Amino acid sequence: MKDQEESLSLVLFSGTDDKLAAAAVLAAGAAAMGRRVHLFLQYWALDAFRVDRIVNDHGLSPEAGATGAEAVRRHGGEHWSETLRQVKEIGDVDIQACALSMDMFQIQQSDLDPMVDGVTGVASFMSTATGAVVFI
Amino acid sequence: MKDQEESLSLVLFSGTDDKLAAAAVLAAGAAAMGRRVHLFLQYWALDAFRVDRIVNDHGLSPEAGATGAEAVRRHGGEHWSETLRQVKEIGDVDIQACALSMDMFQIQQSDLDPMVDGVTGVASFMSTATGAVVFI
Amino acid sequence: MKDQEESLSLVLFSGTDDKLAAAAVLAAGAAAMGRRVHLFLQYWALDAFRVDRIVNDHGLSPEAGATGAEAVRRHGGEHWSETLRQVKEIGDVDIQACALSMDMFQIQQSDLDPMVDGVTGVASFMSTATGAVVFI
Repeated sequence: MKDQEESLSLVLFSGTDDKLAAAAVLAAGAAAMGRRVHLFLQYWALDAFRVDRIVNDHGLSPEAGATGAEAVRRHGGEHWSETLRQVKEIGDVDIQACALSMDMFQIQQSDLDPMVDGVTGVASFMSTATGAVVFI
Repeated sequence: MKDQEESLSLVLFSGTDDKLAAAAVLAAGAAAMGRRVHLFLQYWALDAFRVDRIVNDHGLSPEAGATGAEAVRRHGGEHWSETLRQVKEIGDVDIQACALSMDMFQIQQSDLDPMVDGVTGVASFMSTATGAVVFI
Repeated sequence: MKDQEESLSLVLFSGTDDKLAAAAVLAAGAAAMGRRVHLFLQYWALDAFRVDRIVNDHGLSPEAGATGAEAVRRHGGEHWSETLRQVKEIGDVDIQACALSMDMFQIQQSDLDPMVDGVTGVASFMSTATGAVVFI
């Protein structure tokens, strides 16, 4: 076991609630193991982090179907945004919005949930992504 | 070429047959190169590993379309579950179900295919995921 | 910052224009940071690299919806294939087609865009994927 202190970088692309919940849980697990976590928000995931709609229903992957949707609904539990907020409090977690995607949606950082730490370019993100990189 | 002996960790999230087949092939390639492979089953992928439906038709990604579905059908070949079973025989492959997702589907390990080695939490999974982490 | 010179390996599976654009941007960012980039084309991504249709409309992820599609259309900008072509000129970027997927679509390398460097098996790809591995 060599690099417990290695960082985990998560590129969040998908904006459905199932993938965002999976991402929040992976971030929590990595932070609990003492790893630095970098989140980079692109496309539909970035759209889901808008402060005026972060807790809205963002849907599920098409494959969920009615049965899967019912399992998710019944399970309930904490919203993924709340999980991420708590992970930020206990761990070393940085959340950056992708500058290109910000431009695509024509939004400013003030349009995003306050847990987003800043806006950055992909090269800058890549310079910090020295460990595992996960695309969700 | 520094870390041929480094592990490859695959988080299986999607439950469609094209993504599960791609995952099985990546696991096979990594095991053939002598790498330890950790699989962690979440959400719709976990659902697809239920012993009573693992060989059912789990559909394809929406983008496959009719032409893509026809190419997959015509190509045939081994089922992804059979590929994984063989990879487990020749390689160092561990398959764990995500405890949170088990809870969501209200299932027990006995509901899963016997190739699943156990049920574990995400922090425990992350402590073994010291190399590349791939989300599928 | 330990392994700026570490490679980034991207397994391209999805063939929608939003995911291919995200992949091209990640490849560009990694190459700009001096990292070697390996691309491995499977399934629907491979299909999108056919020379006779690479600039066609490959659609978007289902979650884009009408509003997301409009944001992408309005934003315009360089096609992802053009971004990749430029990244290949400035960086150390290798693009390989997955032999199994070539077989599935019953195509030859001459059917693919000339930026694809060759056809290879997954074990060979895994032997070069010594750093982060990203599945898109």
